[in-house]
Amino acid sequence: MKARLAVSRRLRSTPFTKRIEALGVSDYSIVNHTILPKGFTRSVEEDYWHLREHVQLWDVSCQRQVEIRGHDAARLVQMMTPRDLRTAVAGQCLYTPLIDNNAGLLNDPVLLKLSEDHYWLSIADSDVLLWAKGLALGFGLNVSVREPDVSPLAVQGPKADALMERVFGPQVHEIKFFRFRKLNFQDRSLMVARSGYSKQGGYEIYLDDSSLGLQLWDTLWEAGQGLEVAPGSPNLIERVEGGLLSYGNEFTNANNPLECDFNKYCSFDDDLDYIGKGALCAIKEAGAAQIIRGIKFDCNKCPPCASTWPLLVENVNAGEISTAVWSPRLSCNVALGMLKRGYWDDGQSVVVECGDGTLRSGQVVDLPYK
Amino acid sequence: MKARLAVSRRLRSTPFTKRIEALGVSDYSIVNHTILPKGFTRSVEEDYWHLREHVQLWDVSCQRQVEIRGHDAARLVQMMTPRDLRTAVAGQCLYTPLIDNNAGLLNDPVLLKLSEDHYWLSIADSDVLLWAKGLALGFGLNVSVREPDVSPLAVQGPKADALMERVFGPQVHEIKFFRFRKLNFQDRSLMVARSGYSKQGGYEIYLDDSSLGLQLWDTLWEAGQGLEVAPGSPNLIERVEGGLLSYGNEFTNANNPLECDFNKYCSFDDDLDYIGKGALCAIKEAGAAQIIRGIKFDCNKCPPCASTWPLLVENVNAGEISTAVWSPRLSCNVALGMLKRGYWDDGQSVVVECGDGTLRSGQVVDLPYK
Repeated sequence: MKARLAVSRRLRSTPFTKRIEALGVSDYSIVNHTILPKGFTRSVEEDYWHLREHVQLWDVSCQRQVEIRGHDAARLVQMMTPRDLRTAVAGQCLYTPLIDNNAGLLNDPVLLKLSEDHYWLSIADSDVLLWAKGLALGFGLNVSVREPDVSPLAVQGPKADALMERVFGPQVHEIKFFRFRKLNFQDRSLMVARSGYSKQGGYEIYLDDSSLGLQLWDTLWEAGQGLEVAPGSPNLIERVEGGLLSYGNEFTNANNPLECDFNKYCSFDDDLDYIGKGALCAIKEAGAAQIIRGIKFDCNKCPPCASTWPLLVENVNAGEISTAVWSPRLSCNVALGMLKRGYWDDGQSVVVECGDGTLRSGQVVDLPYK
Repeated sequence: MKARLAVSRRLRSTPFTKRIEALGVSDYSIVNHTILPKGFTRSVEEDYWHLREHVQLWDVSCQRQVEIRGHDAARLVQMMTPRDLRTAVAGQCLYTPLIDNNAGLLNDPVLLKLSEDHYWLSIADSDVLLWAKGLALGFGLNVSVREPDVSPLAVQGPKADALMERVFGPQVHEIKFFRFRKLNFQDRSLMVARSGYSKQGGYEIYLDDSSLGLQLWDTLWEAGQGLEVAPGSPNLIERVEGGLLSYGNEFTNANNPLECDFNKYCSFDDDLDYIGKGALCAIKEAGAAQIIRGIKFDCNKCPPCASTWPLLVENVNAGEISTAVWSPRLSCNVALGMLKRGYWDDGQSVVVECGDGTLRSGQVVDLPYK
């Protein structure tokens, strides 16, 4: 049984919602108090193949921006993450795990450096705004922290380049991966990044004026005719196969960066300080107790995964799955989950205790899925 | 068209979800990253009459607790609210609007004072946990701030007293309004408050052990046979008529307490300090620019209200509606919204511009609805 989403102002609509509804959205999720379209008229499997072959428009307005600006902006942003930001340049996007004083993860935004004293954190599902405001006030920092009127629209898939060129001109090809620049759109200037929550390539347009939303959508939609453009959303199969993690799903505040294989985003440089460094050093010293891995299992489609499923090795608890879905390409279920130390090697046999009570055989695999 | 809610671990299930699903939940909302049942097999109108006559069990686990404990706990809690907490006693529940340094509202939890150095904030939909953690760290306070394993279950309606006596004994009658005490449940002790998000009376049980969830639900359910017990949820009609506000719906961080008629929770005592006091004093001095009021309109049922609807007086914008629903008792639509200064008097005629484009006549009324 699947329940409907009860509407209210609190679950915020977006500048694109009118078009999303007209195109037959069938499923919503909620991220940052904002609706995220998750399905349209096609199945998740049809959507997966379409994303790998064509181009899709995704309403990811729920990736809200936390703007940090002012004299102490760089200082506050560095306090919030173990990633060394000292060499970051304006125009760069940086994947930036945020941790608290216990090294527990709070979010994993993409940081956009607009200038030396101006940053956006493009956040996953938690109110980073309140964390940043609390720190700024408590530490007496000279910054403004707010949520601006910015709604990202993603253009994803192998034909994204062709579609974006039709709207923004050949300049789009000059944007390097995880870089952004300002491009003209109908006498306005919009920030466009080469980024997105898929492994199929594409862009994210940071619309900074809600009143332009339908015009932007319609322009992209019309330009996409002949390219098989379709409405889409982060695709569960594609993200699991690509090893793209989701805060609240694969990891929560109960997890630390080393459990999530974020080692490359953790600096232990003596000259760098950030909140939670002491706790993170201690975890590094002891070694992570569990790590996120891929788990392939069974040739029969598993049910939807709405909570964690235990992983067993010879009847001993060896970890848990957080997300699982049928892959039509690999003809098995693909999953992401935490494996405890001793059980995380590639090829380790496991038994998955699915939400429907079935026990299914599988094995640990490296990410991303081949 | 109503879209389904896409399930994932991130949208957390509760200790009662199995029973909620078995009882045919038809609609969910999301609050604090947790599912909130919003409808079952009956219509919202049938549910309204049932709530006014019988007794309902509500899974309000989404009212997460932010636990603040330790030497500086009282200090931190007072920093977060304009309400004077100096006379609060252990065992008391207090409605406690939280504001930031601009006097913008952040949440409106019920504060439970467990002891002089131990508090729970039973929160509406924003991550107060991150705000409190940020303040505690920044101001160097000696407190622990965490989300404990606590899932409130509400028992609401005129027969709640009878049902609760059958499970917890006659002691329940000794609990005064907005007070709580520990009562025995199967060799355990559970916190029970006389409170809840309706005007029909009842209790909230703060279950502090998820593994007891189904047992608690089943015990209440069995005891409710003969009392016409039913699964329920905060009822939209009943809450609008009762003037019960909802953070994210009637007010957001863009609003201040005086706009929400929270004057009685705002102390301007010289000896009391809290975050945002200066900003709040300035607003008080200038007077609120808008205030939340009731709006009755039209004798034809309005569509669901998923975003704000403009209010017009002689074609001039006079405010906006945030929540609206048909009242079968009053035979008109009832709404909550902000009226600008000059337009908020009882009886003021207004025109409502509904989401479906219709213009409907109405008038401003006092809260709660008669």
